[in-house]
Amino acid sequence: MLKRNFIIGVDFGATYVKVGKIDLKGVISKKNFFPTTDFKSREALIDRISSEISCAINEENSRILGIGIGVPGQVDYKRGIIHNLVNVNGWKNIPFRHILRKRFRGLEVFVDNDANVACLGERQWGSAKGYDNIICVTLGSGVGGGLIINGQLYRGKDYSAGEIGHICIDKKGKTCNCGSFGCLETFAGANYLKEMVIDKLKKKEKSIILKLAGGEYSNITAKLIDEAAKKGDVLSIDVWEETGRNIGLCLAGVVNLLNPEIIVIGGGVSKTGRILFDSIRQTVDDMALDIAKKRLRIVRARFVEDAGIVGAAALVKEELGL
Amino acid sequence: MLKRNFIIGVDFGATYVKVGKIDLKGVISKKNFFPTTDFKSREALIDRISSEISCAINEENSRILGIGIGVPGQVDYKRGIIHNLVNVNGWKNIPFRHILRKRFRGLEVFVDNDANVACLGERQWGSAKGYDNIICVTLGSGVGGGLIINGQLYRGKDYSAGEIGHICIDKKGKTCNCGSFGCLETFAGANYLKEMVIDKLKKKEKSIILKLAGGEYSNITAKLIDEAAKKGDVLSIDVWEETGRNIGLCLAGVVNLLNPEIIVIGGGVSKTGRILFDSIRQTVDDMALDIAKKRLRIVRARFVEDAGIVGAAALVKEELGL
Repeated sequence: MLKRNFIIGVDFGATYVKVGKIDLKGVISKKNFFPTTDFKSREALIDRISSEISCAINEENSRILGIGIGVPGQVDYKRGIIHNLVNVNGWKNIPFRHILRKRFRGLEVFVDNDANVACLGERQWGSAKGYDNIICVTLGSGVGGGLIINGQLYRGKDYSAGEIGHICIDKKGKTCNCGSFGCLETFAGANYLKEMVIDKLKKKEKSIILKLAGGEYSNITAKLIDEAAKKGDVLSIDVWEETGRNIGLCLAGVVNLLNPEIIVIGGGVSKTGRILFDSIRQTVDDMALDIAKKRLRIVRARFVEDAGIVGAAALVKEELGL
Repeated sequence: MLKRNFIIGVDFGATYVKVGKIDLKGVISKKNFFPTTDFKSREALIDRISSEISCAINEENSRILGIGIGVPGQVDYKRGIIHNLVNVNGWKNIPFRHILRKRFRGLEVFVDNDANVACLGERQWGSAKGYDNIICVTLGSGVGGGLIINGQLYRGKDYSAGEIGHICIDKKGKTCNCGSFGCLETFAGANYLKEMVIDKLKKKEKSIILKLAGGEYSNITAKLIDEAAKKGDVLSIDVWEETGRNIGLCLAGVVNLLNPEIIVIGGGVSKTGRILFDSIRQTVDDMALDIAKKRLRIVRARFVEDAGIVGAAALVKEELGL
């Protein structure tokens, strides 16, 4: 019987590892996930990732063309070495590509930053299909980004390009995890949104959020703020509008610098109602130079939960020229 | 006798037009300039530019390979149409390439933005020689920029990329000429430096600047602020340090976004002592991500006064593959 071609896409997140089997049209035929933190050692985690990959490989009627991995940190993409995963213990200078190639002889393995692979996924099968100059923004607990320039993922001299979350938008802004200050991430990351809401609640602004959160500040999430906004909660609407203005302000600068065709916004925080996107679009329109914004589109990512596995598969497709 | 090869480089500035004859090693063999504003009509100005070009063409022993022009505004580079020169009257939607090609039949003509051509000049013959990922910043009355990405000038979808001066670095910043606010240009353009000094003088800060300026605020220039700083004037030193911090803050974001190899800083305002550059370098080092800045160099442009004519010649060299 004719075997169908698949790629294994691994989304190595700080919380979960997801492993998917994706065909050459970007359709997921199978996926699985497990908590990243369940393992006593790096080796145990690698074993588990490998066994998931093996399962997919050993299925009947499947020919696996390669393995792609997206990781939440900086990667020497050419050599497949993970420099450092700030949020996963014990992953410093790990030659992950080499390790997996040894386990899966005959299969190509590619490792890259998660925001980069998300960008490739959107271009290959998602909202940025057909575009050559693309900015992808991933709004999660942090703010990540990827750039496609003249049809190619642009990684920069040391493969660290695309860090939109660490552009300073406020000279007097507060300290960021990166050690700098005023970064977009300090205005638009999920943790910041939560802090912003708690601040406002403590100032006795009226809101239904605390009720939705069962009276616990710690239960407040981006999803909850979205729910509240959809119910007309003024505090929550304000938070989304302000977040949109901050993201838009940063993107206006990026638009003036790079004159892209399309900006794709994904990540968990992007799964909100229209308020955030309207505010982003309005701000870019107010602030960016006329020619730079004239033909610009700002759209939602197609892939959110699956951005990592689909993107990792897109990386393999791209690298192998499939 | 063997003819030597030259390119005509035209620097069409808002104040002066400079016309130069440049050889293929970037050496200027002849140059001339005249005020841009001396002409009653656009046609008269074009006539004068043409006659300067003709003189260079008609010299003995010279073979002219092409004509390059850098202009202070946005250009449809592919078609050679000047969209608009904000600071030169009557230059809206002018097919300048077409006009000059008709006058100089048989010669190739290329038109691009002045910051873009400056960037090409630095890569071809200047401080960025041998680099493939380059950011050029031009500090003049405004702040311009050019990007070379993977060895190619990056112009963006509508040829408007590189506008580093219009990246917002201050959410609460003041209005910029571009209509937005908080742009780098409002912190680092020559006019802003002057305003900043006058503000400080009005607040009765001690300084020798007013004396150097003959008692007239209107005589204060970037050059004078530099002179005063070199004499130990504290107010002037402060102004350069603060300007360097603002430029560095913006560049740190650009470095995180693009992970370039080298940043070349030119333009009239860059001709200062070490204070400005030290402050820029220190700020980028403080703020940029470790990997992105690890191998980064920040250097002075080789060409300042001649950046326009040399850059315009580099454009021709690049386009003709010479």
